[in-house]
Amino acid sequence: MTKVSPFAPAHFPDLPVVGGVRLAVAAAGIRYRDRNDLLLAEFDRGTSVAGVFTRSQTAAAPVQWCRDAIGQGQARALVVNAGNANAFTGTDGPVVVETTVSATTHLFNCRPSQVLVASTGVIGEPLPVDRLTAALPDLHLRLGEADWQAAARTIATTDTFAKGAGCRVEIEGTPVAIAGIAKGSGMIAPDMATMLAFIFTDASITAPALQTILAAATARSFNCITVDGDTSTNDTVLMFATGSAGPRSFDDPADPKLAAFRAGVDAVCLDLAQQVVRDGEGVSKFVSITITGAQDADSARHIGLTVANSPLVKTAIAGSDANWGRIVAAVGRAGEWIDRDRLAIRIGGVLITEDGGPLPDYDETPVAEHMRGREIAIEIDVGVSDGSATVWTGDLTHGYIDINADYRS
Amino acid sequence: MTKVSPFAPAHFPDLPVVGGVRLAVAAAGIRYRDRNDLLLAEFDRGTSVAGVFTRSQTAAAPVQWCRDAIGQGQARALVVNAGNANAFTGTDGPVVVETTVSATTHLFNCRPSQVLVASTGVIGEPLPVDRLTAALPDLHLRLGEADWQAAARTIATTDTFAKGAGCRVEIEGTPVAIAGIAKGSGMIAPDMATMLAFIFTDASITAPALQTILAAATARSFNCITVDGDTSTNDTVLMFATGSAGPRSFDDPADPKLAAFRAGVDAVCLDLAQQVVRDGEGVSKFVSITITGAQDADSARHIGLTVANSPLVKTAIAGSDANWGRIVAAVGRAGEWIDRDRLAIRIGGVLITEDGGPLPDYDETPVAEHMRGREIAIEIDVGVSDGSATVWTGDLTHGYIDINADYRS
Repeated sequence: MTKVSPFAPAHFPDLPVVGGVRLAVAAAGIRYRDRNDLLLAEFDRGTSVAGVFTRSQTAAAPVQWCRDAIGQGQARALVVNAGNANAFTGTDGPVVVETTVSATTHLFNCRPSQVLVASTGVIGEPLPVDRLTAALPDLHLRLGEADWQAAARTIATTDTFAKGAGCRVEIEGTPVAIAGIAKGSGMIAPDMATMLAFIFTDASITAPALQTILAAATARSFNCITVDGDTSTNDTVLMFATGSAGPRSFDDPADPKLAAFRAGVDAVCLDLAQQVVRDGEGVSKFVSITITGAQDADSARHIGLTVANSPLVKTAIAGSDANWGRIVAAVGRAGEWIDRDRLAIRIGGVLITEDGGPLPDYDETPVAEHMRGREIAIEIDVGVSDGSATVWTGDLTHGYIDINADYRS
Repeated sequence: MTKVSPFAPAHFPDLPVVGGVRLAVAAAGIRYRDRNDLLLAEFDRGTSVAGVFTRSQTAAAPVQWCRDAIGQGQARALVVNAGNANAFTGTDGPVVVETTVSATTHLFNCRPSQVLVASTGVIGEPLPVDRLTAALPDLHLRLGEADWQAAARTIATTDTFAKGAGCRVEIEGTPVAIAGIAKGSGMIAPDMATMLAFIFTDASITAPALQTILAAATARSFNCITVDGDTSTNDTVLMFATGSAGPRSFDDPADPKLAAFRAGVDAVCLDLAQQVVRDGEGVSKFVSITITGAQDADSARHIGLTVANSPLVKTAIAGSDANWGRIVAAVGRAGEWIDRDRLAIRIGGVLITEDGGPLPDYDETPVAEHMRGREIAIEIDVGVSDGSATVWTGDLTHGYIDINADYRS
């Protein structure tokens, strides 16, 4: 039995009601026994949809379906199952998706492209789609006001706590709600731990504008986290805008009137992404790594992720060891433009290096104290320009080995 | 106290005498107490030198020195210390190198560029060069026939066994010796990791030809291994050809008369590289990953290393879990050209996948049996062309965490 992450929140957050969204969950027995594993969401007619997906070349069948479907920009239903990823399932994969979509279109009297699907779980095993479709009619009858916590629990696999985030913002004086749920804990690990995130709002935004806003938020949140560097076959972020709150439809993602809305989406994505890291498999410390002085933001992010994925840096953090030499080595192998002799590394706010070496009077005492804490802050200025990025990760512990050395068995 | 790797050989190999090479070792007390930490090698006049180095942008001062020095192509002495990497030591770094080189040139009455230096150990601490130079005169007096095992032990850091390999070949009927030593067990990844290797021969080869032969051998050996994906600041492979065996000097690296010599260098490099993996920190299984059907050899190597560096694949292997789904995911995220629906994955020679899914009658029994062994063979055909490569790695175990969570303290 996996222990609950030490970073689990005391309770699930209080998320707003999102007009135009109805949910239901069920125990379809796809893999698990005695727990819910199937989520159905219904959206009002006219709901816009946007999505960001894994770049894996072994992407799962549901990911391929959603990539095509969001091109139409409209959503009426979302079907998510946990326990089986429907990934690397050969010709059976698309058949399972089409069977699911077909059963759903009958219930909602909608077009196939208006049905989005997502799966997470074991790779390479056929998904028993008959159990899924058998559960749909009853789910459809039970659709109602969103129980976000139940929904978040339903899509979880190795997660040790349910992940939700939300906020209320205003657009032209009209209150608008944003609520999101996510799952993932082996970052984005290719077995039972894919990252799925679903964000819902009652704002009225066209699909192309929603896509731009979601992609920007994802770049600064879900794409800036790593637990173990393993991108999954099923990673999916979908956002739905029902429009039920009005005040009117927006089609310019850069519209100044949407500033608070964009900030709200950013905040919800970042909160969910950080929760995924805080539930990282075996994590005992939460680490933020901020890179400044890089060629541009992409370069900064790549340097940050190289440091964040270094097993030597991650194990040093697990051991509360202020081993900044491993940070230097990781920065050096990132392959980005840096100036070794202008590297400025700070841990817990304490400057450690300058002029290509440690400060002459470097005192490790406050840094060692910081390293013994649970929240670790690393800042690295690489000294060449003004690109910056922050990434988040956890440490690499015995717990990670415990979870992953015999997860499947 | 770290346990000796289960893959340690029963005894150090019997390496040939290499004419024109004299060695001595000493306990200079640079960091360690009660063990040798300083190696001095003397080469006959006219010895050619070649080198391959880390591509890290935070490369250490001795690496920068050697990169320049081998441009002259001649070597008279090699000085290697363990315990301190002289990396990220600011302006002090080059001063330490120059002081070491200067003291050595006085002993050998040679030019600075004829002195090669290498360091391994902690990053970012000043190297007490006075202890190093104080030990040199006595070392110089004690130079004699190579004790390869003592030399290999002297340059070790976290290694659990001394690494050596050698062979005898003929060039135009003349016997020629090749002997090599290496160190490394963590921070190991292509582009030379925290790995030092020194290869010695009494063949007569010009420096440019030696460079070509060494670079080719390195591409197939040291650059095809990974323990933790962490390239280091100090990785160095140097090769010295004293010419004392004759029969005459060769300047064409592709000369057919050097075929056996090239094969010998390849074999020695591969043997040493595999020993580094077999001594990987915490390794309990030795894994070979062969990629075929890729766009080209570089693409194949990149796919292989992505699989080899996946923490999820490595932990599955540690747990003897035939979790080929994680292999599919790692292949997918490598970003190389592959055909998901033609992936053919074999473990222990047993075909597992075809047509984008597992074989309909896949029987895990023999694969599970193979996974319980100590030597794991994974073969992956990615189905697009005929590029191939083999890479080697170990598993990711609790032992790795133990070693690295408090290495420095």
